Amino acid sequence: MSLDSPKPRAVLPIRVYYEDTDTGGVVYYANYLRFFERARTEWLRSLGVDQRELAVREQVMFVVKEANVAYQRPARLDDQIDIHTRVTNISAASIVFEQSARCQAELLVSGQIKVCVVHAATFKPTRLSLSLRTLLEEARK
Amino acid sequence: MSLDSPKPRAVLPIRVYYEDTDTGGVVYYANYLRFFERARTEWLRSLGVDQRELAVREQVMFVVKEANVAYQRPARLDDQIDIHTRVTNISAASIVFEQSARCQAELLVSGQIKVCVVHAATFKPTRLSLSLRTLLEEARK
Amino acid sequence: MSLDSPKPRAVLPIRVYYEDTDTGGVVYYANYLRFFERARTEWLRSLGVDQRELAVREQVMFVVKEANVAYQRPARLDDQIDIHTRVTNISAASIVFEQSARCQAELLVSGQIKVCVVHAATFKPTRLSLSLRTLLEEARK
Amino acid sequence: MSLDSPKPRAVLPIRVYYEDTDTGGVVYYANYLRFFERARTEWLRSLGVDQRELAVREQVMFVVKEANVAYQRPARLDDQIDIHTRVTNISAASIVFEQSARCQAELLVSGQIKVCVVHAATFKPTRLSLSLRTLLEEARK
Repeated sequence: MSLDSPKPRAVLPIRVYYEDTDTGGVVYYANYLRFFERARTEWLRSLGVDQRELAVREQVMFVVKEANVAYQRPARLDDQIDIHTRVTNISAASIVFEQSARCQAELLVSGQIKVCVVHAATFKPTRLSLSLRTLLEEARK
Repeated sequence: MSLDSPKPRAVLPIRVYYEDTDTGGVVYYANYLRFFERARTEWLRSLGVDQRELAVREQVMFVVKEANVAYQRPARLDDQIDIHTRVTNISAASIVFEQSARCQAELLVSGQIKVCVVHAATFKPTRLSLSLRTLLEEARK
Repeated sequence: MSLDSPKPRAVLPIRVYYEDTDTGGVVYYANYLRFFERARTEWLRSLGVDQRELAVREQVMFVVKEANVAYQRPARLDDQIDIHTRVTNISAASIVFEQSARCQAELLVSGQIKVCVVHAATFKPTRLSLSLRTLLEEARK
Repeated sequence: MSLDSPKPRAVLPIRVYYEDTDTGGVVYYANYLRFFERARTEWLRSLGVDQRELAVREQVMFVVKEANVAYQRPARLDDQIDIHTRVTNISAASIVFEQSARCQAELLVSGQIKVCVVHAATFKPTRLSLSLRTLLEEARK
């Protein structure tokens, strides 16, 4: 890895607001997928990957193909949680992220999210550009 | 009004699910704007207005310009509420809806929502087509 | 199964509204978990299980422990989709649901959702009451 | 105002993610109410007001009674917007916030939000405690 490769943003802090909770008193289960997406977006942005630009200029989008999530403990209103993100696999057309939500050291939720690249208009699968794949490979090291 | 004019759908029943509530034990305040939009969509659909088709074929979209909402009583998980919708004003480029959420006879939330027509790509204001305006005027009678 | 056992509601129709979509032009991936929860709630309600009452009277709540979701095709604004729900496993403290979102006959999204029973205040795991377990066993047949 | 009064946090930066947008390509209109609530929460937190503690210890909650929102321009994916918050009126039982969403200097959305204090269990209106009211009065100066 060259000395000046960008380093991905591995941890995104997120505050829990009313909108995130439900009447059970905890964060609603679907909302961790929102948190995970925010963290993947910031992970990509920290590498210089701008998804809006990708959609407009290269006509490609990332879409989630699989999400496998395990819920250990609930988060509650006002909790300050951290979303941890790393890439565990990269292939010609997909990226696998390992992500977790933690409150202080405690694991709340973990997930494995498989993302593919598709044409923005047709949603047909396509391949990662070589430059993007190289960038992601470097970031994983 | 001619005998065969379509009649708008004035009441949309909505069930309250976990996703709609917050840790206060009630429906989160922003979600009534979702309920109101569902009801405006069904009101329009009952008149034969298909918003996806409008966007694709005529390149126009409805966007909300003003939302004035008053909250009287909370709804809770599993409540069956009704969204009432009627049009109170139509001009060349905008429609004003009066909407309310009710549980049985009780008023929960009322709102006045002003909607305008814009070009789908530029978001520049445009005018209602004559056919659409005529349809809405008939529906209001 | 006795002749008068209630039958679970296996299919819930859901209309896609603006709130469900994202700027990619399709339903946002986390929102299928909302749709799946609505369908599980109606499945339970059709058997006479009222979650609000369970929380208040028996101090128990269902919480999701695992969600494994595979995304095949996107749904779009105004699509009318069906959420299919069935139970594939019941143990002392958990229920596994197989769920899918379909548009006409086409599979969009499938998921396997494991739900556990917890004390409403402490979120500590507990066991299904015998009456509830019997009801669910009958429904699965 | 004494020299050591806390100063409220007047501006909250918010990044627009996929979850915030809709198929029109812009931030969904209801989501500005979420952004406004995040900003009111941070405004209160910066004064030392912890809403979860208020709910548990004093059995009071803030609830929105009125929201009047005007939409000028849309925000889009990846936009970095700022939510501006200030208090314009304080009475025995309510607070009025003026809030706006801006992108760089440009006004996107403005709102006037009236918040009341209620008992956490009954949702019956109550009065601001003297200490809370004094704190808010100082913050408004």
